[in-house]
Amino acid sequence: MTEATQLKPLILYDFPSKKPGVKGWNPNVWKARYSLNYKGLPYKTIWVEYPDVASTLEAAGCPPNPVFKKPDGSPIYTLPAIVDPNTGACVSESLLIAVYLDKTYPDKPTLIPAGTRAFHEALLDAFMPNIFPSMRFGMLKTAEVLLNPRSDVYFREARKNDVLRGVSVEDAYPKGDEVQVVWKQIEDGMNKMATWMDKGGYKFAMGDKISFADFVFAGFLQYNKKAWGEESKEWKNMSVNWDGGRWGKLLKDLKEYERDD
Amino acid sequence: MTEATQLKPLILYDFPSKKPGVKGWNPNVWKARYSLNYKGLPYKTIWVEYPDVASTLEAAGCPPNPVFKKPDGSPIYTLPAIVDPNTGACVSESLLIAVYLDKTYPDKPTLIPAGTRAFHEALLDAFMPNIFPSMRFGMLKTAEVLLNPRSDVYFREARKNDVLRGVSVEDAYPKGDEVQVVWKQIEDGMNKMATWMDKGGYKFAMGDKISFADFVFAGFLQYNKKAWGEESKEWKNMSVNWDGGRWGKLLKDLKEYERDD
Repeated sequence: MTEATQLKPLILYDFPSKKPGVKGWNPNVWKARYSLNYKGLPYKTIWVEYPDVASTLEAAGCPPNPVFKKPDGSPIYTLPAIVDPNTGACVSESLLIAVYLDKTYPDKPTLIPAGTRAFHEALLDAFMPNIFPSMRFGMLKTAEVLLNPRSDVYFREARKNDVLRGVSVEDAYPKGDEVQVVWKQIEDGMNKMATWMDKGGYKFAMGDKISFADFVFAGFLQYNKKAWGEESKEWKNMSVNWDGGRWGKLLKDLKEYERDD
Repeated sequence: MTEATQLKPLILYDFPSKKPGVKGWNPNVWKARYSLNYKGLPYKTIWVEYPDVASTLEAAGCPPNPVFKKPDGSPIYTLPAIVDPNTGACVSESLLIAVYLDKTYPDKPTLIPAGTRAFHEALLDAFMPNIFPSMRFGMLKTAEVLLNPRSDVYFREARKNDVLRGVSVEDAYPKGDEVQVVWKQIEDGMNKMATWMDKGGYKFAMGDKISFADFVFAGFLQYNKKAWGEESKEWKNMSVNWDGGRWGKLLKDLKEYERDD
């Protein structure tokens, strides 16, 4: 299994989009997609609507998400998930997918360099609160702009019951003066994370070397680019104006790993 | 400057303690102390009471803390700070001290391995919220058990005006049923951070290799060991019962870098 040409294509499960010209949009799936692309592994995407995720993964012999549970503690099936026909493994949760790919394909470029697993965990832990306010826009935006009708209904109900703790995606969406307040919160969060790199004079999270940490940022950026639209003022602001254009540059620097067919 | 014996001793500014048998206790100064000890650099400690920090550092030609400000935005002088008579530099803030030491003494063991500066920033960012509940115990405990009278008065007033936002250190201290609730919050935070390492099967934050990240945890542990006392049920709980004894083991594994005279 040292040559990609000898490998059977892996399967990546992802959420489809109804938006013209947009394929992959989910920030967490993008982390796995970047990982597969960066390692140069062959794979094909199976697009799954939200209400079909559990049955699809169960049928593929996959376990539930090993990290996250439903609010009531019961297991939950989530994407990204991959099935690797070369080993028979099914892995969900983007960091665990990266760990699996590094372990199974050590001759391909490394996603989590030796000794940085705990740092990656810490970075993910610090990342979430910094971008959390963006959920207030993202829930409704996802439902309205990206999801097909069956997923739309399912997604609104699921988010109301987990992330939003009883609040509807419409009510969570910032209104009036709140819009600028929430954008400022997101900008501040991204600025804080930009300084992690800036203090070291770093281009990527590890300096000159790409790692999974960069795909954490890039997944969030891809989502915003796809949900708001490449020509939107929101995306231009984020990609060009924030942090000296660092975030737009990051996506450009990762462009060769952007495949999402 | 390649041999420690040719170096003039650096100066580390630290807070004294009134508690018998306790010298260094401040978690942030411990990070710098571990850094100096790990690099094997010669240094001497100058013990400074809280009300004297600003005047002492100003007299030594040091700039204010480059990262933190007072709530009103004005500059603040903080410890740890080091003066290096070999270069004339004065550096405050423990991560910046580590960066300085690595840069100035590259032939000594590395604190922040190449490519991990942003990861260290992210880890510090994720660390704080996880241990933040411990402040509710720590403020009063520090004032009552560790500080000399002049520092005690100064410290209570300063913390009321910054971290505690108007609440006194006495009122912030958990009472009744809250005591167990807050301990559980701290235990949960430490457990979350233990899993960063555990998931990779790591002994130290980077696996088998010591880095500054370990001193972040160890500084917090040293504080608790000194403030509660080595024989206290609180320290025994934290060092022996939590996370399979990981935290007590960490201090033992770093014992040779514990010098605080």
